[in-house]
Amino acid sequence: MSFDSRVFRHPKSGFVLDLSHAPDTGTVVLGPALAAMSALEAGAIANESEGRQVGHYWLRSPQTAPNAHVCDAIQAVHAQVAALEKLDVNTDTVLLVGIGGSTLGPQLAYSALSAHPPTRRLIVLDTVDPAGMRFLLRSVNPHRTIVIVASKSGTTAETRMALGWVERHWAEAGVCFADSAIAITSPGSPLEALARTWRSTFPVWDWVGGRTSLMSAIGLVPMALCGIDWRALLAGAAEMDAWTRNPAKTNPAAQLAATWWVAGAGQGGRALVLEPYIDRFAGLARTIQQLLMESLGKSTTRGGEPTNQGLTVYGNKGSADQHALMQQLLSGRDDALVHFVYTDASVDSSPFAHAAGDLQFSLMEGTRTALHRAHRSTVTIQLPNADARALGALLALFERAVGIYAELADINAYDQPDVEHGKRAAREHLQAIEKVKAALSAKPMTAVEIAQNVNLEPGRTWRILCHLCTTHRAQSNIGKCPSDDSFFEVR
Amino acid sequence: MSFDSRVFRHPKSGFVLDLSHAPDTGTVVLGPALAAMSALEAGAIANESEGRQVGHYWLRSPQTAPNAHVCDAIQAVHAQVAALEKLDVNTDTVLLVGIGGSTLGPQLAYSALSAHPPTRRLIVLDTVDPAGMRFLLRSVNPHRTIVIVASKSGTTAETRMALGWVERHWAEAGVCFADSAIAITSPGSPLEALARTWRSTFPVWDWVGGRTSLMSAIGLVPMALCGIDWRALLAGAAEMDAWTRNPAKTNPAAQLAATWWVAGAGQGGRALVLEPYIDRFAGLARTIQQLLMESLGKSTTRGGEPTNQGLTVYGNKGSADQHALMQQLLSGRDDALVHFVYTDASVDSSPFAHAAGDLQFSLMEGTRTALHRAHRSTVTIQLPNADARALGALLALFERAVGIYAELADINAYDQPDVEHGKRAAREHLQAIEKVKAALSAKPMTAVEIAQNVNLEPGRTWRILCHLCTTHRAQSNIGKCPSDDSFFEVR
Repeated sequence: MSFDSRVFRHPKSGFVLDLSHAPDTGTVVLGPALAAMSALEAGAIANESEGRQVGHYWLRSPQTAPNAHVCDAIQAVHAQVAALEKLDVNTDTVLLVGIGGSTLGPQLAYSALSAHPPTRRLIVLDTVDPAGMRFLLRSVNPHRTIVIVASKSGTTAETRMALGWVERHWAEAGVCFADSAIAITSPGSPLEALARTWRSTFPVWDWVGGRTSLMSAIGLVPMALCGIDWRALLAGAAEMDAWTRNPAKTNPAAQLAATWWVAGAGQGGRALVLEPYIDRFAGLARTIQQLLMESLGKSTTRGGEPTNQGLTVYGNKGSADQHALMQQLLSGRDDALVHFVYTDASVDSSPFAHAAGDLQFSLMEGTRTALHRAHRSTVTIQLPNADARALGALLALFERAVGIYAELADINAYDQPDVEHGKRAAREHLQAIEKVKAALSAKPMTAVEIAQNVNLEPGRTWRILCHLCTTHRAQSNIGKCPSDDSFFEVR
Repeated sequence: MSFDSRVFRHPKSGFVLDLSHAPDTGTVVLGPALAAMSALEAGAIANESEGRQVGHYWLRSPQTAPNAHVCDAIQAVHAQVAALEKLDVNTDTVLLVGIGGSTLGPQLAYSALSAHPPTRRLIVLDTVDPAGMRFLLRSVNPHRTIVIVASKSGTTAETRMALGWVERHWAEAGVCFADSAIAITSPGSPLEALARTWRSTFPVWDWVGGRTSLMSAIGLVPMALCGIDWRALLAGAAEMDAWTRNPAKTNPAAQLAATWWVAGAGQGGRALVLEPYIDRFAGLARTIQQLLMESLGKSTTRGGEPTNQGLTVYGNKGSADQHALMQQLLSGRDDALVHFVYTDASVDSSPFAHAAGDLQFSLMEGTRTALHRAHRSTVTIQLPNADARALGALLALFERAVGIYAELADINAYDQPDVEHGKRAAREHLQAIEKVKAALSAKPMTAVEIAQNVNLEPGRTWRILCHLCTTHRAQSNIGKCPSDDSFFEVR
């Protein structure tokens, strides 16, 4: 067998997926999965539980959209985004308010691709932690900042709360918030209504999932404002999309998905450890983590049969992780599939650059070799460059591979039904806080006594009481152990 | 059973480890492990493979060191670090050059604890990626920067390479590097000799492991220079150390280690997912990842029996991960043990702070409840505050727990023998690059032909040839597939 029989190289870009150290995928039946991907791209209701099309491939090739209306809408956004590049207002900062899919992709694009100094720096507010919000807003000057509020539904609790904090920060500085703000949301959402007086609004459609929204307005707006070549990112993704429509044997996404399938015995038995030997791509694992774990972490098949699928993803950057993870990955638990991501592209032809580049390449190759000698499979991705086009291609490869993997597992990769359980329990807990607060009196009572009064679990009641005390809405006599503590209203 | 029978609260600090949603640990025999920890603290050669004592507990309680010489040495470093606080030179940046244990802890301490604006900002150079180093150094002004070079051995290849780049950056700016530089290294190391003309040198001893070195000069020097309360960090750790010397039943570290043991069936079958609901603690998982995966990822017991231990660690921050990991953790593969880390401490008593704090608390509690309803265990750590003392205590809890877990698994938690395999293979690869370069001639040859000439694998030879082409040290005719490519020397 030739050394390159499992090395897939794009003829034009030079992008390489090297599976020569990965398990054989010859037995995996990929035809039906690829047919399903074709149907998805043609506009099938691939997200059946939510009754939605799945259109992230159209975002980078509008002409492939299933109808002219969608094609026109995408192109209109591109024109609207292009106009942002000419914005000559006196701003040096973009504050992106959002969470999850609305921020992970833009954060990666910014850390991987921004210039120094950047056109504008990107600051992400993806929390409701009061100390975290206060700390972050200290470095934001409303006079010099454009705010993007990104929420597909327009109802995300965290984003609405954070927006309130940002609006107050603007008011305190005497700056008109509406003049600084851009909304990105579904047409007809409550955020769209709220943003009527804002600078502008960009649409995001229900056929774009949060975790594949980087190439919608969600990603394009912050990229354009921060001077990142979003057109090249789209072009790189489109080029990868075309390549990954190949028949299975020459389709890198199909082969990658099949590799994950075989490596984890169809049950996700190996975590994907992403090790970019490109410093600025260190955020890659976090973005791919969301893409894979939210898409594939499912309890049932599409037909409702119990399964318990998932693919765990973690990793930081190769150079540092050699000094952190590699001991275990080389000789401890054998439950990982390391993915090396690197590029040879150099900064200049000085001896210093050659020496550092050779060492970086050798560290990667050394680890790859050591894992191979320890009989541990690896995947290697060689990028032609560490630029926007390569990042677009890389993300598109994983997006297609996750779709194919979900077909192999017969699960819906495009919903996230169980996230709702946590949200519902959080709303219950907000009500529980109010109940416990109302149950306080002048007379000290234990958590168990208060829990009985409000019909809540004692442990939860105790934690709520601690929370109320620390935030000065209750007082306590601390006992020897939590069940001895007694609580009363603030005097 | 009372709600708090598995809730461990420190009587003074209020630090809480809540195992009420974790598996029962009653059957785990912890006595011998605790006896081994006592022996370790008393100066036993606990790192047998390297013939070393393990002394990170002495760093925060010098009086517990096994002899006066060690105690005096630690106290002398504290005095030397204290003197740094009075440094009134005109600097606003600390550039920390190091990798692995020399940088992960300081990075966490800085991101979690620095003020805004910081006394000095911390920039970490932990790579040899030429593009990464160039990008990072662009934001470093030698006129206003103190450099710390941290390498225990003083021979770390990455650190030596990065140091060369930093020295050139200083020379280009016409600033004397020696006047800007502080070394932290083992007495007698090559770095100590090199640093003789530098501003100052701090010792780190062979009984301090890299992954537990934050409380040695490695962490104290950058913390002091960046205005972080390193004394409080040490005090918090010492307080936790005292608590975790308790008998097993009232020892939170023993109970936490036993929880990991039971949850993963003694084989690390569950990954620890760290979810701080404290934004500024988002770097926690990366530090704990190194601590656990390097300590516990071992192929053999201390007696040489094959095992394949390990505990995988990942996670970012709770608020964002709810929108990324939770779908899988709630209903996909059941192979994780989520650790919630939170604090109730608020920023002020405004209704805005209460509303955000209540929501953040409810998001955490909602996720915790949803996992419990899905019959998935969790661990909850409630910090009295998000300050240096709490962070010191938190890290000390994990340090002790990892030591106890290693005793249960009968492995050496203090060496990392297999990391050497990757380093050796990297050195081989550096030589291979030279061989391939020397084998080039004017006549185009394929990778297979060149591989035969230099006696290397064809795949590796092809990757080296690609690397040489991209860095302008070879030229190529690109074929239809890698085995068709032909390579020749630069004309």
